[in-house]
Amino acid sequence: MSSSFVYTQRERKLVFGVGTRHDLVQYLNELESQKVFVISDPNGASVVTDIVAPCAARIVHIWTDVRQHVPEDLAASAREEVTRVGADTLLTFGGGSSTGLAKAIALSHELPIIAIPTTYAGSEQTTIYGVTGNRHKQTGSSPKVLPRVSIYDAELTLELPKNVTGASAFNALAHCVNGLSAKGANPVTSAIALEGVRAIVESLPSVMAHPRDVSARERLQYGAALAGITLGDTSTGLHHKICHVLGGAFNLTHADTHSVILPHSTAFNADALPREMAQLSEALGCSRGDEAGALWDLAKRSGVPTSLKQLGLESSNLKEAAERAVNEISSNPRSVTAELLEALLQSAFAGGRP
Amino acid sequence: MSSSFVYTQRERKLVFGVGTRHDLVQYLNELESQKVFVISDPNGASVVTDIVAPCAARIVHIWTDVRQHVPEDLAASAREEVTRVGADTLLTFGGGSSTGLAKAIALSHELPIIAIPTTYAGSEQTTIYGVTGNRHKQTGSSPKVLPRVSIYDAELTLELPKNVTGASAFNALAHCVNGLSAKGANPVTSAIALEGVRAIVESLPSVMAHPRDVSARERLQYGAALAGITLGDTSTGLHHKICHVLGGAFNLTHADTHSVILPHSTAFNADALPREMAQLSEALGCSRGDEAGALWDLAKRSGVPTSLKQLGLESSNLKEAAERAVNEISSNPRSVTAELLEALLQSAFAGGRP
Repeated sequence: MSSSFVYTQRERKLVFGVGTRHDLVQYLNELESQKVFVISDPNGASVVTDIVAPCAARIVHIWTDVRQHVPEDLAASAREEVTRVGADTLLTFGGGSSTGLAKAIALSHELPIIAIPTTYAGSEQTTIYGVTGNRHKQTGSSPKVLPRVSIYDAELTLELPKNVTGASAFNALAHCVNGLSAKGANPVTSAIALEGVRAIVESLPSVMAHPRDVSARERLQYGAALAGITLGDTSTGLHHKICHVLGGAFNLTHADTHSVILPHSTAFNADALPREMAQLSEALGCSRGDEAGALWDLAKRSGVPTSLKQLGLESSNLKEAAERAVNEISSNPRSVTAELLEALLQSAFAGGRP
Repeated sequence: MSSSFVYTQRERKLVFGVGTRHDLVQYLNELESQKVFVISDPNGASVVTDIVAPCAARIVHIWTDVRQHVPEDLAASAREEVTRVGADTLLTFGGGSSTGLAKAIALSHELPIIAIPTTYAGSEQTTIYGVTGNRHKQTGSSPKVLPRVSIYDAELTLELPKNVTGASAFNALAHCVNGLSAKGANPVTSAIALEGVRAIVESLPSVMAHPRDVSARERLQYGAALAGITLGDTSTGLHHKICHVLGGAFNLTHADTHSVILPHSTAFNADALPREMAQLSEALGCSRGDEAGALWDLAKRSGVPTSLKQLGLESSNLKEAAERAVNEISSNPRSVTAELLEALLQSAFAGGRP
């Protein structure tokens, strides 16, 4: 530890446990919330209505129009409604799209958010927000949008489909792995990221084999929450830039790319990160030097995609993908060229154990 | 992980690094501080005057009357002065007594605190405050008293005497070890506590051998800060109750009791805490089952006291000490009787390796 660093904690509470959704009223009381504007994805509307039933008198609106990437016009009409009903608190139920809309409102209205996440997106633990207008997503960061309370009740995740579960768990795992060396990383954020790795690695294969195993779901959700904290405290890097390009330019399902790329992006940087890989090997429970391989084993054991070929990419696209990605990557522990990235993508295309 | 838990983060910033004291003005700007009331122990007055020189126009007072346990009349006169000068921020320089006085003022005046700690007390990371009147110390907890920024510049700790260093480092270590199982412990607080254990164990022998080794001092101060966070997030238990009784009723130097007691209090509870001890053995780098012994080895290697006899206690006092301590202990992983505590104290009196 030779260099300076700053570790920041933000005002937030993470509540974990089966049944904790029924403690909602306690957290409303703590925030002195009297007029609660609920944002739920439409599938969750009946569940959230049950959850808020004991405090129905405080619910001023249940908004169920949520869409990916928070379109600007959607944010505008939701904001208008929030003003009209005079809400003092936002309650979100669902995944990243619900949280995203709440964040857009919190940014303008400075209202506290209580989040009840039902996926592993982790966005409820970051200060990052985004609104999409004119086909362009504007993102930013503000402490105003960080949920003050997040209630993680694993019973709400039991129905999450296996493909969504595997894909978003690997996204979360990538945040933990990359968070060890990303901008903003420090020994405390790394201790939290490694705890996230342990939780995800221990639970994911069980969840994939037995999706209704509530204690495995609980552990996975805990790991995903720590991944969210890690992402919020640090930043993304090479791995997410590659996945972003693959999703954006080649029409692959963005979420499916994480399990394919993570073993190879980890192998790519391993030699430049001896200290981080030593920590990672401990958390993964593998031999030193086999971190990338252990991540690949986890993907295999979890039954998630491990090759770009399997996702439908053509080998003729690899060169273009590498060229696009290299322009996106601003900093990386090891120097990056289009040729090196093409080799990385070639390995990910073949899908062998790194 | 079968039970529910709540993990809370509070608004705070921890700044680590040699020379970071010179970044003070940046943190004053972030808090929009214009009228800064400085509280320093008298020995530190000239150092703190240098530190605040670049922002001298914002310093409204340098208060150097600080005393242990914050006497009520001292708090009252400091509060009066803070009101008189219209301060908007408190800046503390020194150990627990400086921080303690600032907390007493923050409680009544709701002013933010910036702490520049020069010891390993860690009180700048807790919401605990205390004021002593009529020979009785009244303590409480409030988020109002938690410093918003703590600046850890290890150069300020190079002159800390060896006996103070060893004693307070073992106090910090005890907070980390006990924090693994204390009320309020959860997997995230434990990850932070274990990071604290690693940092203290790796650095303390080097600091004791070479007190001016700034990078070892830096690592020790980092561990002590995590111990402070751990204490703030959890609570104390058997270990600190015993040390409290030994310091209070038998006139031993309270601080010196930690290194003597910790190996034996750890051994006492070890069988009741298999999961915590497995984590601790990893952090200590010792065999599973030898955690208490490894803590004793660390004390020996660091040259700090390891027996109550050495501290001047009489063997005839052990029974009374055990009886007093048993009344103080409200909860513990293993059931506690005066007889069991007397046996623990007997081992600590002899000072052998547990």
